[in-house]
Amino acid sequence: MSAVSSAAEAAPTPHDQRRMHVLAAARTCFARAGFHGASMQQICAEAQMSPGALYRYFPSKDAIIEAIAEEERVDAAACVAALHGEGSLVDRITAVGMDYLRQTLDPDTGGLMVEIWSESIRNTALGRRFHEIEAEVRRAFQAALLRAQESGEIDPGIDIAVALTVLFAIGDGLVMRLQIEDEADIETIEPYLRRVVQGLLGVS
Amino acid sequence: MSAVSSAAEAAPTPHDQRRMHVLAAARTCFARAGFHGASMQQICAEAQMSPGALYRYFPSKDAIIEAIAEEERVDAAACVAALHGEGSLVDRITAVGMDYLRQTLDPDTGGLMVEIWSESIRNTALGRRFHEIEAEVRRAFQAALLRAQESGEIDPGIDIAVALTVLFAIGDGLVMRLQIEDEADIETIEPYLRRVVQGLLGVS
Repeated sequence: MSAVSSAAEAAPTPHDQRRMHVLAAARTCFARAGFHGASMQQICAEAQMSPGALYRYFPSKDAIIEAIAEEERVDAAACVAALHGEGSLVDRITAVGMDYLRQTLDPDTGGLMVEIWSESIRNTALGRRFHEIEAEVRRAFQAALLRAQESGEIDPGIDIAVALTVLFAIGDGLVMRLQIEDEADIETIEPYLRRVVQGLLGVS
Repeated sequence: MSAVSSAAEAAPTPHDQRRMHVLAAARTCFARAGFHGASMQQICAEAQMSPGALYRYFPSKDAIIEAIAEEERVDAAACVAALHGEGSLVDRITAVGMDYLRQTLDPDTGGLMVEIWSESIRNTALGRRFHEIEAEVRRAFQAALLRAQESGEIDPGIDIAVALTVLFAIGDGLVMRLQIEDEADIETIEPYLRRVVQGLLGVS
Protein backbone atom coordinates (compact mmCIF):
# COMPACT_ATOMS: atom_id res chain seq x y z
CA MET A 1 0.00 0.00 0.00
CA SER A 2 3.09 2.18 0.32
CA ALA A 3 0.99 4.80 2.12
CA VAL A 4 2.06 8.37 2.51
CA SER A 5 3.30 8.40 6.09
CA SER A 6 3.35 11.49 8.25
CA ALA A 7 7.14 11.49 7.91
CA ALA A 8 6.75 11.66 4.12
CA GLU A 9 4.43 14.65 4.40
CA ALA A 10 7.20 16.58 6.17
CA ALA A 11 9.54 16.04 3.17
CA PRO A 12 11.32 12.70 3.57
CA THR A 13 14.99 12.77 4.52
CA PRO A 14 17.44 10.71 2.43
CA HIS A 15 17.39 8.21 5.31
CA ASP A 16 13.58 7.95 5.10
CA GLN A 17 13.77 7.54 1.34
CA ARG A 18 16.30 4.71 1.58
CA ARG A 19 14.17 3.08 4.28
CA MET A 20 11.07 3.24 2.06
CA HIS A 21 13.14 1.84 -0.82
CA VAL A 22 14.08 -1.17 1.34
CA LEU A 23 10.45 -1.69 2.39
CA ALA A 24 9.28 -1.62 -1.23
CA ALA A 25 11.94 -4.20 -2.15
CA ALA A 26 10.93 -6.34 0.83
CA ARG A 27 7.24 -6.21 -0.19
CA THR A 28 8.21 -7.44 -3.65
CA CYS A 29 10.20 -10.33 -2.17
CA PHE A 30 7.52 -11.26 0.38
CA ALA A 31 4.80 -11.18 -2.29
CA ARG A 32 6.93 -13.47 -4.46
CA ALA A 33 8.25 -15.96 -1.91
CA GLY A 34 6.24 -15.42 1.30
CA PHE A 35 7.40 -13.99 4.62
CA HIS A 36 9.23 -17.18 5.50
CA GLY A 37 10.51 -17.97 2.03
CA ALA A 38 12.10 -14.59 1.31
CA SER A 39 15.61 -14.14 2.76
CA MET A 40 17.45 -10.98 3.78
CA GLN A 41 19.85 -11.81 0.93
CA GLN A 42 16.99 -11.68 -1.61
CA ILE A 43 15.78 -8.39 -0.14
CA CYS A 44 19.30 -6.96 -0.45
CA ALA A 45 19.46 -8.09 -4.08
CA GLU A 46 16.02 -6.61 -4.85
CA ALA A 47 16.97 -3.33 -3.14
CA GLN A 48 20.39 -3.41 -4.85
CA MET A 49 22.08 -2.81 -1.50
CA SER A 50 24.83 -4.63 0.36
CA PRO A 51 23.84 -6.43 3.58
CA GLY A 52 25.93 -3.89 5.50
CA ALA A 53 24.00 -0.98 3.98
CA LEU A 54 20.61 -2.64 4.48
CA TYR A 55 21.30 -3.53 8.10
CA ARG A 56 21.76 0.19 8.81
CA TYR A 57 18.01 0.56 8.18
CA PHE A 58 16.70 -2.75 9.50
CA PRO A 59 18.59 -5.08 11.85
CA SER A 60 16.49 -8.14 10.92
CA LYS A 61 13.75 -9.51 8.70
CA ASP A 62 11.42 -9.24 11.69
CA ALA A 63 12.15 -5.51 11.89
CA ILE A 64 11.21 -5.17 8.20
CA ILE A 65 7.98 -7.11 8.70
CA GLU A 66 7.16 -4.95 11.73
CA ALA A 67 7.69 -1.80 9.61
CA ILE A 68 5.36 -3.22 6.95
CA ALA A 69 2.77 -3.96 9.63
CA GLU A 70 3.10 -0.35 10.79
CA GLU A 71 2.51 0.86 7.21
CA GLU A 72 -0.59 -1.33 7.08
CA ARG A 73 -1.76 0.18 10.37
CA VAL A 74 -1.39 3.71 8.96
CA ASP A 75 -3.37 2.66 5.87
CA ALA A 76 -6.02 1.08 8.08
CA ALA A 77 -6.37 4.34 10.03
CA ALA A 78 -6.82 6.26 6.74
CA CYS A 79 -9.47 3.74 5.71
CA VAL A 80 -11.30 4.24 9.01
CA ALA A 81 -11.16 8.04 8.62
CA ALA A 82 -12.70 7.78 5.13
CA LEU A 83 -15.51 5.66 6.56
CA HIS A 84 -16.47 8.49 8.90
CA GLY A 85 -16.75 11.03 6.05
CA GLU A 86 -19.79 12.57 4.34
CA GLY A 87 -22.52 10.91 2.31
CA SER A 88 -24.67 7.81 2.69
CA LEU A 89 -23.21 4.71 4.33
CA VAL A 90 -23.43 2.81 1.03
CA ASP A 91 -21.48 5.63 -0.70
CA ARG A 92 -18.82 5.65 1.99
CA ILE A 93 -18.39 1.87 2.09
CA THR A 94 -18.22 1.76 -1.71
CA ALA A 95 -15.60 4.55 -1.73
CA VAL A 96 -13.49 2.89 0.99
CA GLY A 97 -13.78 -0.43 -0.84
CA MET A 98 -12.70 1.05 -4.17
CA ASP A 99 -9.74 2.79 -2.50
CA TYR A 100 -8.72 -0.51 -0.96
CA LEU A 101 -8.90 -2.20 -4.37
CA ARG A 102 -6.89 0.54 -6.08
CA GLN A 103 -4.23 0.45 -3.36
CA THR A 104 -3.83 -3.32 -3.56
CA LEU A 105 -3.96 -3.57 -7.35
CA ASP A 106 -0.22 -3.73 -7.99
CA PRO A 107 1.05 -7.32 -7.84
CA ASP A 108 3.46 -6.63 -4.97
CA THR A 109 0.76 -5.30 -2.66
CA GLY A 110 -1.93 -7.74 -3.77
CA GLY A 111 0.47 -10.68 -3.53
CA LEU A 112 1.49 -9.52 -0.08
CA MET A 113 -2.17 -9.47 1.01
CA VAL A 114 -2.48 -13.14 0.05
CA GLU A 115 0.63 -13.91 2.14
CA ILE A 116 -0.88 -11.99 5.07
CA TRP A 117 -4.15 -13.97 4.82
CA SER A 118 -2.19 -17.18 4.62
CA GLU A 119 -0.41 -16.21 7.87
CA SER A 120 -3.76 -15.26 9.46
CA ILE A 121 -5.29 -18.60 8.51
CA ARG A 122 -2.31 -20.48 9.95
CA ASN A 123 -2.73 -18.29 13.05
CA THR A 124 1.00 -17.56 13.26
CA ALA A 125 2.31 -14.71 15.45
CA LEU A 126 2.71 -12.72 12.23
CA GLY A 127 -0.83 -13.56 11.18
CA ARG A 128 -2.19 -12.43 14.54
CA ARG A 129 -0.27 -9.14 14.27
CA PHE A 130 -1.99 -8.33 10.95
CA HIS A 131 -5.31 -9.64 12.24
CA GLU A 132 -5.19 -7.09 15.09
CA ILE A 133 -4.75 -4.28 12.58
CA GLU A 134 -7.79 -5.52 10.69
CA ALA A 135 -9.74 -5.72 13.95
CA GLU A 136 -9.39 -1.93 14.31
CA VAL A 137 -10.93 -1.42 10.88
CA ARG A 138 -13.66 -3.88 11.73
CA ARG A 139 -14.56 -2.01 14.93
CA ALA A 140 -14.92 1.22 12.92
CA PHE A 141 -17.22 -0.51 10.42
CA GLN A 142 -19.20 -2.01 13.27
CA ALA A 143 -19.77 1.44 14.83
CA ALA A 144 -20.78 2.91 11.45
CA LEU A 145 -23.29 0.11 10.78
CA LEU A 146 -24.74 0.39 14.28
CA ARG A 147 -25.28 4.14 13.86
CA ALA A 148 -26.90 3.56 10.46
CA GLN A 149 -29.22 0.99 12.01
CA GLU A 150 -30.18 3.39 14.80
CA SER A 151 -30.93 6.18 12.31
CA GLY A 152 -32.95 3.81 10.11
CA GLU A 153 -30.56 4.18 7.16
CA ILE A 154 -30.05 0.43 6.87
CA ASP A 155 -32.16 -2.64 7.68
CA PRO A 156 -32.47 -2.81 11.52
CA GLY A 157 -32.81 -6.60 11.34
CA ILE A 158 -29.25 -7.15 10.09
CA ASP A 159 -26.85 -9.12 12.29
CA ILE A 160 -23.93 -6.70 12.09
CA ALA A 161 -21.25 -9.28 12.93
CA VAL A 162 -22.35 -11.59 10.10
CA ALA A 163 -22.83 -8.69 7.67
CA LEU A 164 -19.26 -7.54 8.42
CA THR A 165 -17.86 -11.00 7.84
CA VAL A 166 -19.55 -10.99 4.42
CA LEU A 167 -18.47 -7.40 3.70
CA PHE A 168 -14.82 -8.12 4.51
CA ALA A 169 -15.04 -11.31 2.47
CA ILE A 170 -16.22 -9.29 -0.52
CA GLY A 171 -13.32 -6.83 -0.12
CA ASP A 172 -10.65 -9.50 0.26
CA GLY A 173 -12.18 -11.65 -2.46
CA LEU A 174 -12.08 -8.73 -4.88
CA VAL A 175 -8.43 -7.97 -4.04
CA MET A 176 -7.60 -11.57 -4.84
CA ARG A 177 -9.75 -11.76 -7.98
CA LEU A 178 -8.15 -8.64 -9.43
CA GLN A 179 -4.77 -10.30 -8.96
CA ILE A 180 -5.88 -13.51 -10.68
CA GLU A 181 -7.84 -11.80 -13.48
CA ASP A 182 -5.21 -9.20 -14.21
CA GLU A 183 -6.95 -8.15 -17.42
CA ALA A 184 -10.05 -6.98 -15.49
CA ASP A 185 -10.66 -3.20 -15.38
CA ILE A 186 -10.94 -2.24 -11.72
CA GLU A 187 -13.17 0.79 -12.41
CA THR A 188 -15.90 -1.41 -13.92
CA ILE A 189 -16.27 -3.01 -10.47
CA GLU A 190 -17.66 0.07 -8.68
CA PRO A 191 -21.37 -0.10 -9.65
CA TYR A 192 -21.42 -3.82 -8.83
CA LEU A 193 -19.69 -3.29 -5.49
CA ARG A 194 -22.37 -0.69 -4.73
CA ARG A 195 -25.11 -3.16 -5.67
CA VAL A 196 -23.81 -5.87 -3.34
CA VAL A 197 -23.35 -3.41 -0.46
CA GLN A 198 -26.92 -2.16 -1.01
CA GLY A 199 -28.21 -5.72 -1.09
CA LEU A 200 -26.25 -6.70 2.00
CA LEU A 201 -27.42 -3.72 4.05
CA GLY A 202 -31.01 -3.75 2.81
CA VAL A 203 -30.84 -0.31 1.16
CA SER A 204 -32.71 0.16 -2.09
CA MET B 1 -13.19 -31.20 -1.15
CA SER B 2 -12.99 -34.99 -0.87
CA ALA B 3 -15.90 -35.31 -3.31
CA VAL B 4 -17.66 -38.55 -3.94
CA SER B 5 -16.02 -39.68 -7.15
CA SER B 6 -17.68 -42.01 -9.61
CA ALA B 7 -15.17 -44.69 -8.56
CA ALA B 8 -16.30 -44.31 -4.94
CA GLU B 9 -19.95 -44.79 -5.95
CA ALA B 10 -19.06 -48.21 -7.35
CA ALA B 11 -17.72 -49.30 -3.90
CA PRO B 12 -14.06 -48.33 -3.61
CA THR B 13 -11.49 -51.09 -3.78
CA PRO B 14 -8.80 -51.27 -1.08
CA HIS B 15 -6.43 -49.74 -3.66
CA ASP B 16 -8.85 -46.81 -4.19
CA GLN B 17 -9.18 -46.36 -0.44
CA ARG B 18 -5.42 -46.24 0.08
CA ARG B 19 -5.12 -43.81 -2.80
CA MET B 20 -7.76 -41.51 -1.27
CA HIS B 21 -5.96 -41.79 2.07
CA VAL B 22 -2.73 -40.57 0.42
CA LEU B 23 -4.57 -37.70 -1.28
CA ALA B 24 -6.13 -36.59 2.02
CA ALA B 25 -2.69 -36.64 3.68
CA ALA B 26 -1.24 -34.68 0.75
CA ARG B 27 -3.99 -32.05 1.01
CA THR B 28 -3.16 -31.60 4.69
CA CYS B 29 0.54 -31.15 3.89
CA PHE B 30 -0.08 -28.80 0.95
CA ALA B 31 -2.49 -26.68 3.02
CA ARG B 32 0.14 -26.44 5.76
CA ALA B 33 3.30 -25.88 3.74
CA GLY B 34 2.22 -25.07 0.18
CA PHE B 35 2.63 -27.16 -2.96
CA HIS B 36 6.31 -26.33 -3.18
CA GLY B 37 7.05 -26.42 0.54
CA ALA B 38 5.55 -29.84 1.25
CA SER B 39 7.84 -32.78 0.49
CA MET B 40 7.04 -36.39 -0.44
CA GLN B 41 8.69 -37.28 2.88
CA GLN B 42 6.17 -35.13 4.78
CA ILE B 43 3.28 -36.65 2.82
CA CYS B 44 4.57 -40.15 3.70
CA ALA B 45 4.76 -39.18 7.37
CA GLU B 46 1.25 -37.66 7.31
CA ALA B 47 -0.13 -40.76 5.55
CA GLN B 48 1.87 -43.02 7.89
CA MET B 49 3.23 -44.92 4.90
CA SER B 50 6.73 -45.77 3.80
CA PRO B 51 8.02 -44.07 0.61
CA GLY B 52 7.99 -47.49 -1.07
CA ALA B 53 4.32 -48.01 -0.22
CA LEU B 54 3.33 -44.48 -1.23
CA TYR B 55 5.17 -44.67 -4.56
CA ARG B 56 2.95 -47.61 -5.48
CA TYR B 57 0.04 -45.14 -5.63
CA PHE B 58 1.79 -42.02 -6.90
CA PRO B 59 5.19 -41.94 -8.62
CA SER B 60 5.78 -38.24 -7.86
CA LYS B 61 4.49 -35.15 -6.10
CA ASP B 62 3.33 -33.92 -9.50
CA ALA B 63 1.19 -37.04 -9.87
CA ILE B 64 -0.41 -36.32 -6.49
CA ILE B 65 -1.09 -32.71 -7.44
CA GLU B 66 -2.58 -33.87 -10.74
CA ALA B 67 -4.89 -36.24 -8.85
CA ILE B 68 -5.99 -33.38 -6.58
CA ALA B 69 -6.65 -31.23 -9.64
CA GLU B 70 -8.78 -34.07 -11.02
CA GLU B 71 -10.76 -34.19 -7.73
CA GLU B 72 -11.29 -30.44 -8.03
CA ARG B 73 -12.49 -30.92 -11.61
CA VAL B 74 -15.03 -33.52 -10.47
CA ASP B 75 -16.24 -31.14 -7.75
CA ALA B 76 -16.45 -28.32 -10.28
CA ALA B 77 -18.62 -30.49 -12.54
CA ALA B 78 -20.95 -31.24 -9.58
CA CYS B 79 -21.14 -27.51 -8.87
CA VAL B 80 -22.08 -26.82 -12.50
CA ALA B 81 -24.76 -29.52 -12.41
CA ALA B 82 -26.30 -27.95 -9.29
CA LEU B 83 -26.38 -24.58 -11.04
CA HIS B 84 -28.59 -26.07 -13.76
CA GLY B 85 -31.14 -27.39 -11.25
CA GLU B 86 -34.61 -26.15 -10.28
CA GLY B 87 -35.68 -22.86 -8.70
CA SER B 88 -34.83 -19.21 -9.24
CA LEU B 89 -31.31 -18.25 -10.29
CA VAL B 90 -30.73 -16.50 -6.94
CA ASP B 91 -31.80 -19.69 -5.11
CA ARG B 92 -29.49 -21.84 -7.22
CA ILE B 93 -26.49 -19.52 -6.91
CA THR B 94 -27.03 -19.26 -3.14
CA ALA B 95 -27.27 -23.05 -2.86
CA VAL B 96 -24.14 -23.64 -4.96
CA GLY B 97 -22.32 -20.98 -2.94
CA MET B 98 -23.32 -22.50 0.40
CA ASP B 99 -22.25 -25.97 -0.81
CA TYR B 100 -18.89 -24.54 -1.83
CA LEU B 101 -18.49 -22.94 1.61
CA ARG B 102 -19.44 -26.14 3.45
CA GLN B 103 -17.05 -28.21 1.32
CA THR B 104 -14.12 -25.86 1.92
CA LEU B 105 -14.78 -25.27 5.62
CA ASP B 106 -12.30 -27.79 6.97
CA PRO B 107 -8.85 -26.23 7.39
CA ASP B 108 -7.17 -28.65 4.99
CA THR B 109 -9.48 -27.85 2.11
CA GLY B 110 -9.74 -24.13 2.85
CA GLY B 111 -6.00 -23.83 3.36
CA LEU B 112 -5.45 -25.66 0.09
CA MET B 113 -7.73 -23.17 -1.72
CA VAL B 114 -5.50 -20.32 -0.52
CA GLU B 115 -2.46 -22.18 -1.88
CA ILE B 116 -4.25 -22.69 -5.20
CA TRP B 117 -5.08 -18.95 -5.43
CA SER B 118 -1.51 -18.12 -4.58
CA GLU B 119 -0.37 -20.32 -7.49
CA SER B 120 -2.97 -18.72 -9.79
CA ILE B 121 -1.79 -15.23 -8.85
CA ARG B 122 1.83 -16.17 -9.51
CA ASN B 123 0.60 -17.65 -12.81
CA THR B 124 2.61 -20.83 -12.36
CA ALA B 125 1.89 -23.92 -14.48
CA LEU B 126 0.09 -25.33 -11.44
CA GLY B 127 -1.90 -22.11 -11.03
CA ARG B 128 -2.95 -22.20 -14.67
CA ARG B 129 -4.05 -25.84 -14.31
CA PHE B 130 -6.44 -24.92 -11.49
CA HIS B 131 -7.49 -21.74 -13.28
CA GLU B 132 -8.64 -23.82 -16.27
CA ILE B 133 -10.86 -25.88 -13.96
CA GLU B 134 -12.40 -22.70 -12.61
CA ALA B 135 -12.93 -21.43 -16.16
CA GLU B 136 -15.31 -24.35 -16.76
CA VAL B 137 -17.39 -23.32 -13.75
CA ARG B 138 -17.32 -19.73 -14.92
CA ARG B 139 -18.61 -20.64 -18.37
CA ALA B 140 -21.55 -22.46 -16.76
CA PHE B 141 -22.37 -19.42 -14.62
CA GLN B 142 -22.07 -17.19 -17.67
CA ALA B 143 -24.60 -19.32 -19.59
CA ALA B 144 -26.99 -19.33 -16.62
CA LEU B 145 -26.82 -15.53 -16.23
CA LEU B 146 -27.30 -14.99 -19.94
CA ARG B 147 -30.42 -17.17 -19.96
CA ALA B 148 -31.75 -15.31 -16.90
CA GLN B 149 -31.19 -12.00 -18.66
CA GLU B 150 -32.99 -13.23 -21.77
CA SER B 151 -35.97 -14.41 -19.74
CA GLY B 152 -36.07 -11.13 -17.78
CA GLU B 153 -35.32 -12.86 -14.46
CA ILE B 154 -32.34 -10.59 -13.74
CA ASP B 155 -31.43 -7.02 -14.71
CA PRO B 156 -30.75 -7.00 -18.49
CA GLY B 157 -28.30 -4.11 -18.05
CA ILE B 158 -25.76 -6.17 -16.11
CA ASP B 159 -22.31 -6.71 -17.61
CA ILE B 160 -22.12 -10.46 -17.05
CA ALA B 161 -18.30 -10.64 -17.11
CA VAL B 162 -17.95 -8.03 -14.37
CA ALA B 163 -20.82 -9.50 -12.34
CA LEU B 164 -19.11 -12.91 -12.47
CA THR B 165 -15.79 -11.46 -11.32
CA VAL B 166 -17.62 -9.97 -8.33
CA LEU B 167 -19.60 -13.17 -7.70
CA PHE B 168 -16.47 -15.35 -7.72
CA ALA B 169 -14.75 -12.81 -5.50
CA ILE B 170 -17.59 -13.13 -2.98
CA GLY B 171 -17.31 -16.92 -3.02
CA ASP B 172 -13.53 -17.02 -2.63
CA GLY B 173 -13.54 -14.20 -0.08
CA LEU B 174 -16.05 -16.11 2.05
CA VAL B 175 -13.99 -19.30 1.87
CA MET B 176 -10.99 -17.33 3.13
CA ARG B 177 -12.94 -15.41 5.79
CA LEU B 178 -14.37 -18.60 7.24
CA GLN B 179 -10.82 -19.90 7.60
CA ILE B 180 -9.62 -16.72 9.33
CA GLU B 181 -12.71 -16.28 11.54
CA ASP B 182 -12.93 -19.89 12.56
CA GLU B 183 -15.51 -19.11 15.25
CA ALA B 184 -18.03 -17.87 12.65
CA ASP B 185 -21.11 -20.06 12.09
CA ILE B 186 -21.27 -20.85 8.39
CA GLU B 187 -25.06 -21.30 8.38
CA THR B 188 -25.62 -17.69 9.50
CA ILE B 189 -24.04 -16.61 6.18
CA GLU B 190 -26.81 -17.91 3.91
CA PRO B 191 -29.37 -15.04 4.14
CA TYR B 192 -26.58 -12.50 3.63
CA LEU B 193 -25.16 -14.38 0.67
CA ARG B 194 -28.67 -14.35 -0.81
CA ARG B 195 -28.92 -10.59 -0.22
CA VAL B 196 -25.66 -9.83 -2.02
CA VAL B 197 -26.54 -12.10 -4.94
CA GLN B 198 -29.94 -10.38 -5.22
CA GLY B 199 -28.27 -6.97 -5.09
CA LEU B 200 -25.66 -7.95 -7.65
CA LEU B 201 -28.16 -9.37 -10.13
CA GLY B 202 -30.80 -6.68 -9.61
CA VAL B 203 -33.46 -9.05 -8.26
CA SER B 204 -35.70 -7.75 -5.48
